[in-house]
Amino acid sequence: MARRRERPTGDAFRSLPVAVDAMGGDHAPGAVVDGARQVASAGGIGVLLVGPDGGMGDTGGLPVLHASEVIGMEDDPGQAVRRKKDSSLVRAAEAVRDGRALAMVSAGNTGAAMAAALLRMGRLPGVIRPAIATPIPNPGTGRPPTVLLDAGANAECSAAMLVQFAQMGAAFARQRYAVDRPRVALLSIGEEKSKGTPLTKDVHRMLDAGVLGGEATFVGNVEGRDFLHGAADVVVTDGFTGNVALKTLEGSLKFLVGSLMEVLGRPTLSDAAAVLLSELAPLATELDPEGTGGAMLLGVDGVCVISHGSSSPRAIVNAITVAHDLAVAGLADAVADAVSGALTGADEPSSAPSEPPAVDA
Amino acid sequence: MARRRERPTGDAFRSLPVAVDAMGGDHAPGAVVDGARQVASAGGIGVLLVGPDGGMGDTGGLPVLHASEVIGMEDDPGQAVRRKKDSSLVRAAEAVRDGRALAMVSAGNTGAAMAAALLRMGRLPGVIRPAIATPIPNPGTGRPPTVLLDAGANAECSAAMLVQFAQMGAAFARQRYAVDRPRVALLSIGEEKSKGTPLTKDVHRMLDAGVLGGEATFVGNVEGRDFLHGAADVVVTDGFTGNVALKTLEGSLKFLVGSLMEVLGRPTLSDAAAVLLSELAPLATELDPEGTGGAMLLGVDGVCVISHGSSSPRAIVNAITVAHDLAVAGLADAVADAVSGALTGADEPSSAPSEPPAVDA
Repeated sequence: MARRRERPTGDAFRSLPVAVDAMGGDHAPGAVVDGARQVASAGGIGVLLVGPDGGMGDTGGLPVLHASEVIGMEDDPGQAVRRKKDSSLVRAAEAVRDGRALAMVSAGNTGAAMAAALLRMGRLPGVIRPAIATPIPNPGTGRPPTVLLDAGANAECSAAMLVQFAQMGAAFARQRYAVDRPRVALLSIGEEKSKGTPLTKDVHRMLDAGVLGGEATFVGNVEGRDFLHGAADVVVTDGFTGNVALKTLEGSLKFLVGSLMEVLGRPTLSDAAAVLLSELAPLATELDPEGTGGAMLLGVDGVCVISHGSSSPRAIVNAITVAHDLAVAGLADAVADAVSGALTGADEPSSAPSEPPAVDA
Repeated sequence: MARRRERPTGDAFRSLPVAVDAMGGDHAPGAVVDGARQVASAGGIGVLLVGPDGGMGDTGGLPVLHASEVIGMEDDPGQAVRRKKDSSLVRAAEAVRDGRALAMVSAGNTGAAMAAALLRMGRLPGVIRPAIATPIPNPGTGRPPTVLLDAGANAECSAAMLVQFAQMGAAFARQRYAVDRPRVALLSIGEEKSKGTPLTKDVHRMLDAGVLGGEATFVGNVEGRDFLHGAADVVVTDGFTGNVALKTLEGSLKFLVGSLMEVLGRPTLSDAAAVLLSELAPLATELDPEGTGGAMLLGVDGVCVISHGSSSPRAIVNAITVAHDLAVAGLADAVADAVSGALTGADEPSSAPSEPPAVDA
């Protein structure tokens, strides 16, 4: 069982910077440093750039934590974290562990970010396995995004893990989106509790039996077609299904938006396009993944935000802001409280802390 | 091991009608009978309406196979098929079994249609479990739709089942879309073969070892984001993941199209909307699920097309036409050939023939 680290408290903690992996992402270090500088110049949130001193372009005088190595998008997560001990990703996680930063942000290799956070920060007490929580927007509903987890950290899951994902996801929805009593749903292939695999049926029964306590409400099964409509505040599934669903959702939206843009770009349509684009702007804003702040690794002893690989400076600004706000609000404590006492780590895999994550989500 | 039924051959078989479940679907019997009449009046394809004699509206003189019962969309598939022996769905499957029809079409309860086909027609020799194959369009690529299977028949699958799905799906792609040597892919959470679950890794290894022979090419893993782009001709997955992916895809496309239509319907946009809609028409046509002919149950000893519950007369016309053409072309034989000798039914579940399907897809 993991033990909880001592953390600086109060003002000392709140004044810590967010450690930013300057070398992670398709547009690193440029876009990352740019976003970090925007946050710092706005004031209120400190930033610690982690990367090769002198190798990050114009850092605008931001404090730098030197790291000589870089973990690439194609590197094997487990191996990379073990071998590249002086990488920006590993050093960012260590900065949180060592009380030099209150949270970390990376737009790099998702699996490696998860492995680094898990190995350096450690798991929260009682947590069987951390999970990746990804916000999915609910445009036009007036509702906050739905938190999907696990979005790819654990390809295979036990029932106890999925129940913990429900607890951790609910804690996250409460803190991130101020949802008072989150509606938690289980992703399955039919609304009836008789639908699904033995795993989903077990989890359905456990959630139905009140394991969420008064902090969240289990609303039953949802299906793939229920995304984007605000059917639930938290949707729980294994990391394989969650990753397939998330990528299918992103891919289909991207395809259709791309097709529409291609048509609107035709010279004969310029007048119509201008009118239409202004009308579609609110929808586009709500669907924009750069606005969400990125995915969150829940279950580790610290705050770790994983931003999209293609992150622009704006996405980095949002990721740093969300990481800061949630760290200050005590997300890790809230997650630990949500899982404590509810489930033992009975089926906790002994290899969990060192096992590489399933996917580069 | 199932044994193959004797079937009428040659002209005698080709002249048989398609049995159409007149009572299945949200708009039954009206839309179904309407579609059936359109097919019959066009000539070349015979139709046998299955439903309550005198209770299907104006059948326009089409031949009728009387069935007094109806299986509803909400009925439990396994129970309904066992209890409602005189239902239109069960009688349609029996018409194929008894050599009175060359194929069946239903827009009703997917799980019940699958159960009826499985119990009445039986499995093809060597087939461990039938699977639902659903075409997913690849708009703008010039490629035929990608065949996704299993789309929901089997929530849990063995590696041998998934390998058979690859074989059956390839046989279907060859016959339905005249793809010479279909590119078969495995749905996973990363392109590398090291990504996924123990199941997907096993299947990857088996497909990579050449179990598809010269009839198809294994192209490795694909991800959820690869749909709609023609990345493969056949995508293989378990029925749980396949159903979640399919519904997520359908749901997200429907959401975005709906949002666009809402904007285009605004009075201030009428001129722009008219221009844009005409430009988007080709894309809309390619994405329209009513044009595909519906999903196909592969692995049963006969042809069973499962059309969408919301099928219009046009969708029914396409479903009947596809069912007829594939039956005449010998789809069941092709599927049987594809699986024969390649895999034993070693892990064939003894309860398979009577087990209700996993989902009402």
